[in-house]
Amino acid sequence: MTTAELVDGYFAVWNEPDTALRATRLAAIWADGAIYCDPSVRAEDAARFLSHIAELRSRQPGAVWRLLGTPDAHHDLIRFAWHVVDPAGVELRRGIDVIVVSGDGRRIARVYGFFDA
Amino acid sequence: MTTAELVDGYFAVWNEPDTALRATRLAAIWADGAIYCDPSVRAEDAARFLSHIAELRSRQPGAVWRLLGTPDAHHDLIRFAWHVVDPAGVELRRGIDVIVVSGDGRRIARVYGFFDA
Repeated sequence: MTTAELVDGYFAVWNEPDTALRATRLAAIWADGAIYCDPSVRAEDAARFLSHIAELRSRQPGAVWRLLGTPDAHHDLIRFAWHVVDPAGVELRRGIDVIVVSGDGRRIARVYGFFDA
Repeated sequence: MTTAELVDGYFAVWNEPDTALRATRLAAIWADGAIYCDPSVRAEDAARFLSHIAELRSRQPGAVWRLLGTPDAHHDLIRFAWHVVDPAGVELRRGIDVIVVSGDGRRIARVYGFFDA
């Protein structure tokens, strides 16, 4: 999978309104043993990560997660900036994520997130 | 080790002019199996990382690596911005590093670096 496909697939998980489809989308890009960690949560399995996304989506109805700029990739790493906006386009949060790609280059092994606002 | 101590120790490695002392400084903060990876190098052991630092220092005599702002830490992660300046204070490079701290909280297990200029 290319960097763009992996990042697109990742945002598609966050922005998928249907819970079952969200899990399916995540399964397509999430490596065995993958970990998501940002200041608010450390999710050591897909179920925990999905429940975190569900909780944020229910607290912020209509929120949309958007890539900012172009992802920066080297070796097995991808870095990009993002923000979350409400339906009126008001920014709710902004940050960066660093993704470590799995050994086969096809899935996400780690997401390390940091908040900037 | 606190976040500040670990980050200070990390910059002290880059800025140490003496090769032997640089290796000693690194040994104090580098976990077994630690990896350094930025766009220019993936160093899977301390010796490779040290040779990379030595090469950069010889190419940029008098360069100083400086922390920019305050490190941002959560869970086992630390993020900070940095730049390298020449003896006249001219910026040679700027970027961010994400550090993954070892399980015991005392050493660096991973450094993921990205360049911004």
